[in-house]
Amino acid sequence: MNSSFSQIKQIANNKTLAIDCMGGDFGPSVIIPAAIQALKQYPELRLYLVGQENQLKPYLKKFHEFKDRLQILNADEIIAMDEKPSRAIRSKPNSSMRQALQLVKDGKAQACISSGNTGALMALATILIGTLPGIERPAIVAELPNQKGGESHMLDLGANIDASAEQLASFAVMGSVLAEAISEEVKPSVALLNIGEESIKGRDSIKLAADLLRQHKDINFQGFIEATQIFHGEVDVIVCDGFTGNNVLKASEGITRFLYDQLRAEFSSSWRHKLAAIMVQPVLNAFKKRINPDQYNGASLLGLREIVIKSHGSADKNATLAAIKKAIVEIERQVPQKIQHKVASLLIDE
Amino acid sequence: MNSSFSQIKQIANNKTLAIDCMGGDFGPSVIIPAAIQALKQYPELRLYLVGQENQLKPYLKKFHEFKDRLQILNADEIIAMDEKPSRAIRSKPNSSMRQALQLVKDGKAQACISSGNTGALMALATILIGTLPGIERPAIVAELPNQKGGESHMLDLGANIDASAEQLASFAVMGSVLAEAISEEVKPSVALLNIGEESIKGRDSIKLAADLLRQHKDINFQGFIEATQIFHGEVDVIVCDGFTGNNVLKASEGITRFLYDQLRAEFSSSWRHKLAAIMVQPVLNAFKKRINPDQYNGASLLGLREIVIKSHGSADKNATLAAIKKAIVEIERQVPQKIQHKVASLLIDE
Repeated sequence: MNSSFSQIKQIANNKTLAIDCMGGDFGPSVIIPAAIQALKQYPELRLYLVGQENQLKPYLKKFHEFKDRLQILNADEIIAMDEKPSRAIRSKPNSSMRQALQLVKDGKAQACISSGNTGALMALATILIGTLPGIERPAIVAELPNQKGGESHMLDLGANIDASAEQLASFAVMGSVLAEAISEEVKPSVALLNIGEESIKGRDSIKLAADLLRQHKDINFQGFIEATQIFHGEVDVIVCDGFTGNNVLKASEGITRFLYDQLRAEFSSSWRHKLAAIMVQPVLNAFKKRINPDQYNGASLLGLREIVIKSHGSADKNATLAAIKKAIVEIERQVPQKIQHKVASLLIDE
Repeated sequence: MNSSFSQIKQIANNKTLAIDCMGGDFGPSVIIPAAIQALKQYPELRLYLVGQENQLKPYLKKFHEFKDRLQILNADEIIAMDEKPSRAIRSKPNSSMRQALQLVKDGKAQACISSGNTGALMALATILIGTLPGIERPAIVAELPNQKGGESHMLDLGANIDASAEQLASFAVMGSVLAEAISEEVKPSVALLNIGEESIKGRDSIKLAADLLRQHKDINFQGFIEATQIFHGEVDVIVCDGFTGNNVLKASEGITRFLYDQLRAEFSSSWRHKLAAIMVQPVLNAFKKRINPDQYNGASLLGLREIVIKSHGSADKNATLAAIKKAIVEIERQVPQKIQHKVASLLIDE
C-alpha cells in the first residue's frame, strides 16, 4: 500500500480523487468499501484515502489488487460532525478533511469527497482552494428527482444562511452551467424559489435577483416557482438561499420517511393487509428503489476553483459510491472551468 | 333565506361563523355544500354566507330546512387570488372577504373562514380585527401529521416573510397556547426550526429567539430541530419565519404528490404489478386516506383578537368542512382569549 502515484505510468484520462475517510456516521467502514467498488468500476480511477492509517488499513487487507491505484495519506485528526467550523480550522491542522482538500489544492487530485462536517468543509475548501473570480462564496447544489423521470438541480442547500440578490443570481448562473454540463440540457431552465408565482410576492432580494436574471439573455430564466413545483420537473435549476434550501431538502427527506412508514403501517394493520403486503412485496421493493435517495447522494460545492463533493453524513456504501461517481462526472465535464468561463462572460457583458 | 339571526331565539352555546364564499379555486360550488354539511353536523351552528347573492342562491335551493340558521350577506366584489393585497384593500371596500371579517369585527360572528388571497386576508384581518396587545403581526399556523399518530403545530407558514427574534418568540408562545387548547397537550413542547440541532448554527435571530424562550419557564422549550424531524412528532410546536415555513409546507405537499404518483406508476408498470394493485386496492385506499391532507385543512391566523381561518385555495368540500370544524373548535376552546392571557402574563414577567 506504499506505492506512490508518481511512480505509476501516467495514463491518459486518469482521474484521481482525494477521499476523506473519517467523516460521516460510519467513517472508513462504509467509505472504503465504496472506494474499492469505484476502483472496480472505473479502471482509470486512482484514489487517495485520507485518514488515520491504522483505522483504514484493516478495510484494505483483501484488496492488494488495487495497491497501485490507491494510496493512504495518514491524517491524525478528525473534525467532529458537531464541531464549530472556526474552531476545527484553527485547532486541527492535520485533519483528514484538510489533508484531502490540500491534495486538490496541490494538484495531486482533481476532486475531494467528504461526508464530514459541512460547515468545516465549506470553510476549509474556501480557504484552501478558493472561489472562482466573481463568486463571493460557494453554494451547495444537489440533484432532486422529479415527476418527469429526470433530475432537477437545487441550490443553495445550506452554504449561505442568507443570500443577497447578486448571490442568488450567481447561484442561478452556476446551477445553469452545472445542469448543462451534467444533465446535458440545452439552455436549462432556471427559477427562483418564492412563496408565490406572482412577481409581487416574496423577499426584496428575490425580486431583485429576478430583475438581474432577466437581463442575462444567456440564462433561460423562468421567474418564480413555489415549493410545490420543485418535484414537477418543469425547471432544471431551482435557486434559493441556503437556509430555505436546507430546510426544504430536509423536510422532503423527513416526509419521505414518514410516508414510507405510513405505507408500511397500513400494510401491517391487519392480517388481510399483511397478506396483501407479501403479494406486493416486489412492487414495494421497486417503489423503494425508485424513491431511494441514495442515488442522488453527493452535493457539489459550486463556485470553487476545484471540485469538492459533500456526501451525506448518513450515507451508506451505495450512497457513498454515488457521491464518488458524481465527482468523476464533474471531472469529465470540467464543471469548474465551465462555470469560470460563464461567469467571466457575464461579468464582461455587464 | 331572508330570516335574520336577530329574530331567532338565542340558544346557549350558539356558534356563528362568517364564511367568505367567493374565495379559492372553486368558490361557492364547494364552499356552500361544505357549509350545509357543517349545519347538519352541528345543530348549534349558524352561518353567514358572504358573496354575490346570485352566485350563492342556486346552491341553496334544496336546503330550506336550514333557512333559519343561515343568512346570505351580499358582497359584490371579489378579491382575486393573485391580486396585490394593498390594491385589493384600497379598491374593493365591498369584497366578500372584507364583509365576512366585518361581521366578526361587529360581533355578529365569532369566526371568519376564507379560502381567498392569503395576503389580503392577513392584511384586512389585521386592519379590521387587530392584533392582541403585545403581538406585532399575526402568524399562520397549521397542523401537520406526525409519526406518533398525532399532530404537530407549525408556524409561521407565510404571514411574515422575515421574523425577528421577538416575533419568533411570540410565535412560540402562541403556538404553545394553541397546542394546549386544541390538542389538550399539557405543557406542549416547542422547538425552533434551524439548519442544525447544535446551538452554534443558524441565523442570529433564531439563536436570540432561543435565548428569549429559555427565559420563559412557562414555555416547554426544547431548543432547535432540523426539518427532517418535523414529522417525527417529538415536538408539539415548530417555529420558524414565514418564508421558510411556507416553503417547507409546500415542498412537503409537493413531495407527497410526487411519491404517491411514483407509487401509482410502480403499480402500473407491468401486468403483474397491475394485478397486484387490484389486490391491494383497499390497502392503497386506506393509505391515501391516512395521508390525505384534507383532514388538516384550515390554517389559523394566530395573534388576532378574533378567530380567522384560512382554508386552502384548492380545498374541496371535505377539506373546507375541516376548516369550518377548526373554527368551531377554536371558538369552543377560546383560543384568542387564552393567547391574550398568556402573552399578558409573559409581558408582566419581563
